[in-house]
Order: sequence, then structure tokens, then C-alpha cells
Amino acid sequence: MPFSLSQASIPVFEIHLNALAAILDKAEAFAATKKIDPAVLLRTRLAPDMFDLTRQVQVSTDQARRGSARLAGIEPPSYEDTETTIAQLKARIAKTLAFLKTLDTKQIDASAEREITFPLGNDKGHMNGADYLNHSVLPNFYFHVTAAYAILRHCGLEIGKRDFLGAIPMRRSQAA
Amino acid sequence: MPFSLSQASIPVFEIHLNALAAILDKAEAFAATKKIDPAVLLRTRLAPDMFDLTRQVQVSTDQARRGSARLAGIEPPSYEDTETTIAQLKARIAKTLAFLKTLDTKQIDASAEREITFPLGNDKGHMNGADYLNHSVLPNFYFHVTAAYAILRHCGLEIGKRDFLGAIPMRRSQAA
Repeated sequence: MPFSLSQASIPVFEIHLNALAAILDKAEAFAATKKIDPAVLLRTRLAPDMFDLTRQVQVSTDQARRGSARLAGIEPPSYEDTETTIAQLKARIAKTLAFLKTLDTKQIDASAEREITFPLGNDKGHMNGADYLNHSVLPNFYFHVTAAYAILRHCGLEIGKRDFLGAIPMRRSQAA
Repeated sequence: MPFSLSQASIPVFEIHLNALAAILDKAEAFAATKKIDPAVLLRTRLAPDMFDLTRQVQVSTDQARRGSARLAGIEPPSYEDTETTIAQLKARIAKTLAFLKTLDTKQIDASAEREITFPLGNDKGHMNGADYLNHSVLPNFYFHVTAAYAILRHCGLEIGKRDFLGAIPMRRSQAA
């Protein structure tokens, strides 16, 4: 298949969740070197009314898990939000990656025109599968992954765009 | 067509560039109310080695323009990076939105397996069209749009997730 919903969702979540886990490893090493309690990083936010790093990572995994489960037509599993350490956040990422592997990509591919219903505060939101991926799941997922990265840059962690992009399927050649 | 490359790119850029223009309007009003020179906001960055707001907006439009042009198989037009005011950045967004309207969506849809070559520092990057959209253009676009939003939140602008998501095609209903 030349272009499909599963291709535009599952590998994107996998690449960025793996990249996020690697960034958290760098944050752990940074905290050790600087003799900072890693919990200080986890509680940092870019504005008083924005989520802290812990919550940004939790919500990134929620978007990947719930978004892809709904596209696959199954009820997304619920995770408790109890993480207080980098190791626990990495375990949540690993659990999410394992869950993604269980999904039926054919079901996801067949969801482009199927109505997806999802909670929206006290209301419900309704979009077809293609719109749900393009205009709800992906922007929300990228929002929280970028916010997590930006919080750590703001704290002084030396990471760059390659850490954000992760292990992308690209070939590099020298310009003539 | 149930799911296509043009559908996963053009409307995404349109929605978020319009949302970014609306956020810049709110930033202009905020600066006026607080008696802040808007240039102070435009020069704010989340870390000394990250782009400031001006550059985040410029690069957001670059990703949309260059990414979609390459998928459509045409040479992307070059824009000079000379903006110093919110009005000029909004004009660049408007110019980008007008350019997106000129692209042939059928060409974009046919690019899933075609090799896309793009500059990468002094080297060249090569990816097929589907990978290029999923793993280069969209993550980079969302990165810079989110960074622009986060800079303004950090400055105290009262905007929320709806301002970020923009005018998405969603139906809302009251839960039973």
C-alpha cells in the first residue's frame, strides 16, 4: 500500500516515543552530572498553567495509545498517572510501545471514513478516522512530545533536532 | 480517496498556519494591553540556543512550503528572512497559504513511493514521499509551530490548546 493510516500513525509514535525515552536518558545523565534531583526536571513547566515534564510525557503516551486504539476500533486501555521518576516514565513508554505492537494495522487502515467518537471534557467529539489522525491525534501527540523536549532545552539539556526527530528512515549522501 | 498524502499535508498546514496567524493577533493585542514592544515577544526564545519567535514562525512556513512543493515535484520558492514585525510575519503566512493553493494535489498523492531529495546541511537527504511527509515534514512543522505557541505561553499570553489546534473538522455532541 503506497500510503495508509497505519503507516502515518504507528511508526510515527514508535520513532518519537523511542526518541523521547532516549532524551529522558540524557536528562537522567544531565541531572547526575549537575547534581540536580531529576524530580526537579520532571516538575519543570514552561508556564505556570502548562503541564510539567512528567505530565507531558504521560499525555504523549496517552495520545499514541488512545489514538491508535480508537483507529483500530478497540477500547483504549487506561493507565494510572502515578509516575514520579524517569525510570517509571520510561516504563510507561515501553508499555505503550508494546501495546502498539498488538494493534491490527488492517483495522487502522480501514478507518479513514469510519466515525471515531472520543471524550471531550464533558462532551463527545466525532471525526472520521482520517481527520481524527490528521487533526486531533497527530497535532496533540506532537504538541506534547515537543513540549517535553522544549522543557529540557529550557533546563539546559544539550539536545538537538536529531534527538527530537529520532531514528527516521533517511538516506544521506554527500552533495556533489 | 479514503486517505492520501495531500489530505495528510495541505489541510494540516492550512489549519495550523491560520491558527498561528490568529495566535500572532492575540500576541499583538497582548503587547498593546501590557504596553510591551511586540519586538520583545518576537525575540523571545525558550533557551539561548533555540530559535526566537520570529524564526520559529519563518521555519514553520518554510516546512509547509518546501515540504509540500517537494511532494508535488516542483522546486520550492525561496523567501527572504527579513520579517521584523507581527504584520510582516502574518504576510509571510498569507503568502505561504496562497502558495499551497497553487499545488497539484494529484502530484502530491502520487509521491508516496517517489524519492524526494532535499538539502541537509552540506549533504543531501533522500526519503520516499510517504516517509518524507511522516518523518521529516510533519514532525519539523509541528516542532516549530508548537515552539512558537510555547514561547508565547511562556511570555504570559492566555491561549489554550484550542488556539493551537485551530479550526479542525470536528462535530461535538453532549454526552448522554
